[in-house]
Amino acid sequence: MPRFALQVEYDGAPFAGWQAQADQPSVQGALEAALARLDPGFAGRRIAAAGRTDAGVHATGQVAHADLDRDWDPFRLSEALNWHLKPAPVAILRAARVEDDFHARFSAQERRYLFRLVARRAPVTHLKGRVWQVLNPLDVDAMRAGAAHLIGRHDFTTFRSSLCQASSPVKSLDEIGIETAEVPQGTEYRFSLRARSFLHNQVRSIVGTLERVGAGSWPPARVAEALAARNRAACGPVCPPQGLYLTGVGYPRDPFA
Amino acid sequence: MPRFALQVEYDGAPFAGWQAQADQPSVQGALEAALARLDPGFAGRRIAAAGRTDAGVHATGQVAHADLDRDWDPFRLSEALNWHLKPAPVAILRAARVEDDFHARFSAQERRYLFRLVARRAPVTHLKGRVWQVLNPLDVDAMRAGAAHLIGRHDFTTFRSSLCQASSPVKSLDEIGIETAEVPQGTEYRFSLRARSFLHNQVRSIVGTLERVGAGSWPPARVAEALAARNRAACGPVCPPQGLYLTGVGYPRDPFA
Repeated sequence: MPRFALQVEYDGAPFAGWQAQADQPSVQGALEAALARLDPGFAGRRIAAAGRTDAGVHATGQVAHADLDRDWDPFRLSEALNWHLKPAPVAILRAARVEDDFHARFSAQERRYLFRLVARRAPVTHLKGRVWQVLNPLDVDAMRAGAAHLIGRHDFTTFRSSLCQASSPVKSLDEIGIETAEVPQGTEYRFSLRARSFLHNQVRSIVGTLERVGAGSWPPARVAEALAARNRAACGPVCPPQGLYLTGVGYPRDPFA
Repeated sequence: MPRFALQVEYDGAPFAGWQAQADQPSVQGALEAALARLDPGFAGRRIAAAGRTDAGVHATGQVAHADLDRDWDPFRLSEALNWHLKPAPVAILRAARVEDDFHARFSAQERRYLFRLVARRAPVTHLKGRVWQVLNPLDVDAMRAGAAHLIGRHDFTTFRSSLCQASSPVKSLDEIGIETAEVPQGTEYRFSLRARSFLHNQVRSIVGTLERVGAGSWPPARVAEALAARNRAACGPVCPPQGLYLTGVGYPRDPFA
């Protein structure tokens, strides 16, 4: 049975998350329905993805894999899937034939996330549902100083949801970059995070905590204290999902190369 | 009666355009309703804007003016208006007290527009309704060469709607810049146009024509021939409204400075 990797972009707003759930729209469900329409042998099978994004979280570089009956030309597969996905805001950016031992989730060595935060007084219009908005500008140098405490291998118990199912809270965080961009009468802060894998709500817990630092409510050193506490109660507020994007997944060999 | 200038951002998607129309949602109508709620003396008065944008066209820097009964603090006025505008995707970025002879439309000396065009195979998801999408990449150098023929003072009959009510088709086009940006698995082309004023559908007629040049269907010199023809039939296809943004308006003295 030929296996295909799919690079997937989606607007998370209308979905209860990546994962298929009874009676709730999901990205996985939309993709599986489209796959079953174009490759009837697929019906009843499931797809797996690198990141099981929460309700409202977006992706520009999610990766999933599916086993199909037919040995599709990858370009024709992506075109046919995009046709059957309409009008759901889900698009296949690339498809590729992969080896049977490729697994979108278990073969992944790196996940990259972007969090978009906009600070301005006036409500966002074009970016509604695409960013988290706060009213006042943030101190980006303070946020960078706070973020530096989180780089490396740590017990991230403070920064994971109490519902997290990972067997261990110890993770290596390889990068947190914060760039700024102008928006009309405001500033956008773009947080880029990179790790082998993330705990449940880890990115949103980190960004919500760094926002407190940027707003001047927390000194940067309090981020180190929160991390050392290994206590969920020491975390800053978890920020909302609509600013979060899964932007890329790394594998030992790029399946789309 | 104190006069106020308002800098306005909006998502054009839900509106039949800027201009108030019976039984159709308009940006002007949404703003006038919000003004009447916070300044009851305003009820029955109208506001004027620098650019009467068409249905589906967006703005990040529209400018309007209104005469109110109360001498509002400008910051409080913008905050109160944003409150009363909810949940319409219209936001007041800045408000300012101006002289009685300031007129948002007739005092304007310059309008700036941005047109966003995305070329890629997969349907856009996050940018749906915010860009015009074509499937194949465009030749940006050819488009720049075509655009160069349009700079300066010309009879733009070819590039204006047959419904255009301007008394003369002669206009000076001061700038057409085309920048590119990467989007996942595609390219965005950002057209920036600047002129004292534009004819009806002029930007969309120009960008639709330049797209033909970028796609290789038109040699750049055909843009000069189309302009010289002074004939609407010589224009390329008029492109759709959802990629167009009114980004700024220039006045002899910046009302918000």
